[in-house]
Amino acid sequence: MLSPLDRLTQLLARLPGLGPRSARRAVLHLLKRREALMQPLVEAMIAAASQVQNCSVCGNLGSLDPCEICRDANRDRALLCVVEDVADLWALERSHSFRGLYHVLGGTLSALEGIRPSDLRIDSLIERLRDGGVEEVILALNATVEGQTTAHYVTERLAPLGVGVSRLAHGLPVGGELDYLDDGTLTAALQARRKFG
Amino acid sequence: MLSPLDRLTQLLARLPGLGPRSARRAVLHLLKRREALMQPLVEAMIAAASQVQNCSVCGNLGSLDPCEICRDANRDRALLCVVEDVADLWALERSHSFRGLYHVLGGTLSALEGIRPSDLRIDSLIERLRDGGVEEVILALNATVEGQTTAHYVTERLAPLGVGVSRLAHGLPVGGELDYLDDGTLTAALQARRKFG
Repeated sequence: MLSPLDRLTQLLARLPGLGPRSARRAVLHLLKRREALMQPLVEAMIAAASQVQNCSVCGNLGSLDPCEICRDANRDRALLCVVEDVADLWALERSHSFRGLYHVLGGTLSALEGIRPSDLRIDSLIERLRDGGVEEVILALNATVEGQTTAHYVTERLAPLGVGVSRLAHGLPVGGELDYLDDGTLTAALQARRKFG
Repeated sequence: MLSPLDRLTQLLARLPGLGPRSARRAVLHLLKRREALMQPLVEAMIAAASQVQNCSVCGNLGSLDPCEICRDANRDRALLCVVEDVADLWALERSHSFRGLYHVLGGTLSALEGIRPSDLRIDSLIERLRDGGVEEVILALNATVEGQTTAHYVTERLAPLGVGVSRLAHGLPVGGELDYLDDGTLTAALQARRKFG
């Protein structure tokens, strides 16, 4: 039987970004701020656990179903951006660069981890496209082996639907330096070069 | 009014070691593991908030008062190690290099932050020493300006009591903090402690 201190430390250490040492520091931080931080955090977790749900349309997380993005009449319903994870959706939203709708797959295909197409939200993607209105699907998947494998698989599944499929451009990150770039990215950036000015 | 998601993210970002981005990642992690992690974490925080208290003797945090260390009959009651913070006490305990008792000051003197002697547990340290039995006080304070200022002040206050005062050996890097030290360095510094002043 662990002490309340050790139990809390152990659980906090399971959060991404916190290890055993930083979890101990977080526990001390919390115990010094019981009223100001610990109690509000407990309440916020209880509220989030009961109120936050996955959008039944796109898979985003939020307090509403359908989510705020799916409800937003100002968004371009002809563009559908497919992402692996809710975190990727949020990253795109923060960039304010996309005004269409999203579809969260909930992961990538992985033979190693036994994740098959039926484990991802691919069928519901095809359902959405069959309902019509979407002209272009943008595959915003990670440039990893799993992400690209998934992109190929989704493209094949979408082919019969006759909807345009695109993927994010590869290239030099803004603010990035050539000298630090891997060869694959450099090659891709060179091949996809565009007329200047 | 913040959404439950934003509220939880904002509170988690106030933990040391988590910024806004890692807090968002932690929220997603929690929402994907509501039964396995979020619920246990809520329960652990409620348990810790109600059960964990400061030891009235040494200032350590734990479920018992006096704490397990103060109760432990096998520890050397002639040795008293003075630390700034509970985190420092825990760091020393992890090094398994000290078998005496502790006294947590609860901070360091700081003109800048307005922390005066009366804000620290110095009076209760003197009370403990007046009760007798302690032969040596080891000042295990951080090698920062504030830590060393506090060490000098405590030494002056203890002088009339005729108890031996030592400090950790230099071995800990100048400007470094106890909680970040590896166990080997902590052990070496403790063994090579020298008479203060």
